[in-house]
Amino acid sequence: MTEQLAGIADEILTKMEQAMEERGLDALVATSPENVAWASGAAPPSQRIVRSRLAAAIVPRDGESELVAIALEGPVVRTQSRLGSLRLYEEFVEDPVLVFADSLVQRGLGEGVVGIEETHLSQADYAKLADALPRARLVRADELFDELRMVKTPSEIEAIRDIGVAAERIAVEVCERFGPGATERSIANFVAERYAEAGGDGLTMLVVGSGPRSAAVNAPPTDRALAAGDILRLDIIGTKARYHSDVARTAVVGEPTDEQQQVYDLLLGVHRRCLDALRPGVLTTDVYAIYRDAMDAAGLPPYHFVGHGLGITLHEEPFVNSLKAIALEPGMVLCIEPLTLLEGRFGMQIEDEVLITPDGYEPLTEAGDLIRMRG
Amino acid sequence: MTEQLAGIADEILTKMEQAMEERGLDALVATSPENVAWASGAAPPSQRIVRSRLAAAIVPRDGESELVAIALEGPVVRTQSRLGSLRLYEEFVEDPVLVFADSLVQRGLGEGVVGIEETHLSQADYAKLADALPRARLVRADELFDELRMVKTPSEIEAIRDIGVAAERIAVEVCERFGPGATERSIANFVAERYAEAGGDGLTMLVVGSGPRSAAVNAPPTDRALAAGDILRLDIIGTKARYHSDVARTAVVGEPTDEQQQVYDLLLGVHRRCLDALRPGVLTTDVYAIYRDAMDAAGLPPYHFVGHGLGITLHEEPFVNSLKAIALEPGMVLCIEPLTLLEGRFGMQIEDEVLITPDGYEPLTEAGDLIRMRG
Repeated sequence: MTEQLAGIADEILTKMEQAMEERGLDALVATSPENVAWASGAAPPSQRIVRSRLAAAIVPRDGESELVAIALEGPVVRTQSRLGSLRLYEEFVEDPVLVFADSLVQRGLGEGVVGIEETHLSQADYAKLADALPRARLVRADELFDELRMVKTPSEIEAIRDIGVAAERIAVEVCERFGPGATERSIANFVAERYAEAGGDGLTMLVVGSGPRSAAVNAPPTDRALAAGDILRLDIIGTKARYHSDVARTAVVGEPTDEQQQVYDLLLGVHRRCLDALRPGVLTTDVYAIYRDAMDAAGLPPYHFVGHGLGITLHEEPFVNSLKAIALEPGMVLCIEPLTLLEGRFGMQIEDEVLITPDGYEPLTEAGDLIRMRG
Repeated sequence: MTEQLAGIADEILTKMEQAMEERGLDALVATSPENVAWASGAAPPSQRIVRSRLAAAIVPRDGESELVAIALEGPVVRTQSRLGSLRLYEEFVEDPVLVFADSLVQRGLGEGVVGIEETHLSQADYAKLADALPRARLVRADELFDELRMVKTPSEIEAIRDIGVAAERIAVEVCERFGPGATERSIANFVAERYAEAGGDGLTMLVVGSGPRSAAVNAPPTDRALAAGDILRLDIIGTKARYHSDVARTAVVGEPTDEQQQVYDLLLGVHRRCLDALRPGVLTTDVYAIYRDAMDAAGLPPYHFVGHGLGITLHEEPFVNSLKAIALEPGMVLCIEPLTLLEGRFGMQIEDEVLITPDGYEPLTEAGDLIRMRG
């Protein structure tokens, strides 16, 4: 285990133990890919692909924590997990849910108060776990996990900064290297290669939208070739050591039209005003209002959020929207991403990662003027 | 919609309607990514990444089917869905589970018998759906979906053949093109590029294991460079139009050792004997026994299955293992993949896709002798 990973382990287990103490929980059981990765450091490769290959991070308030994972991926998770022990189950031979129950019983928690992810564990698996632990009290811990993950530990912040800075550098390199005739797919291949060189696990979603396609949300790269006058919207979303990058840049091939320049400048102004507002205590709804009011005043289509927390998952609390007011706290890592999509014409997005500090914020990445690609 | 996709739609909806008739169901609701894709043809891009972005394929026995998906991915799913109508929900504003319930009520199914995926829908979402439909009867349909998907329709078989043949061709091309000094990652990049050129949606898991890493299960590519004498194990797993390829080849860089040649020849013999056994009525457990007995006799570590169904998911029924005897039927598509992993030394795998026919089987891909790469 590297020093950085060991640091994350100590910090996160301490947070979990404190939370259990405060809320009278005897154990927390993470089963979703995101909370298993957060609590244990491990991401069994096929967990997301084959739904029955469940994993769990079992963290008692007192005593040794344990990762439960599928045996055939033991060699991979053994090098990743930061928990006290590792228990592997044989697919089809053992039922993973019954192994979770047994791990809890082994830890003397058969009659304990156990926090469970009710929004992850399926109806069938939840019922099986409850049957196997008739004297335990299963309580919903979904919101607790969200809350604990919202403020990042120092080692988590460094992990996010590391791959975020790499994503920003790759976006700049794309804009310098490519020009008319390059296809979205060739750009995507280049990004994938550079992202792997930076140590990334892989891209989980990559937007390379050119011309009218820059206005499509989450559109995968195609064979469309860049032409002079095109807007290129890049959004580099992937993970390294389980932590996400999410950095978006907008460029123009050659010279922008007056309208393109105006829309970009307006978004950049909004971006800066949103950033200037960031400090502990400020409400997410107030930051969203800065964006929303500017878009409405300019007659541009707004997006339903202008930012979100970033970490083990791409989108996590706090969301910066009009629906839920969350007060910012030091240690939160946010993406701020004013975006406007003019369907059939062009879309623009400026997305940076920032850390909330005791005094305000620290940029992890920093966008500037509309990027010019050779035309 | 292309002709092929329209064909899949008719075939699958007909199968679902017949099954509902036989089992007294008024509707089937698919919510897992695999069953949404199978029933509707659509795969909302962020459904797997952001867990709360639920989708559902709602198929009544009588009346119009409907896809429910997140509004921001409307432009993508609109071009994919084969269902009668499309209903989009606004993230954070509407609760997708309540939209599913409303879609059922709109279809006069508020008091119906509704098949649900209990192993997919979370404990929390299931409870919410049941509350919203107090007079409906929710019944478990998980096994029904597995069963319906086990025998492929003619259009599905062509979709699987198409990308399977491409994966086989790419594996051969890798072995011809690369040699000593090439890194696993450069090979992975090449495979990704060719897979995209073949029209693939992307690789969901790719094994490029060289030297001792060829013995690691599901290991992602690294910077390790090929050297003379290395075994290279390639497993090309991805999707095109939502259907999987899963083809594995084993090669040697330069000349094999006697042991390498012997192990490969033994696996190839086992592979052929397993294939020769395939015909309707044969039990999966009997096919597994051919593999298991040969491995035990040779003192080689066996894997817990020697094959599996292939389709919308990578691993689906029927599994070819010792645990569950399923009689083969015409129209099943299987991967047959004898594998042995000599930890710390080398691993070998020969994986082909085959279609069960009324008389026996038809190979979709066809492995041969140990592949020699330049040394």
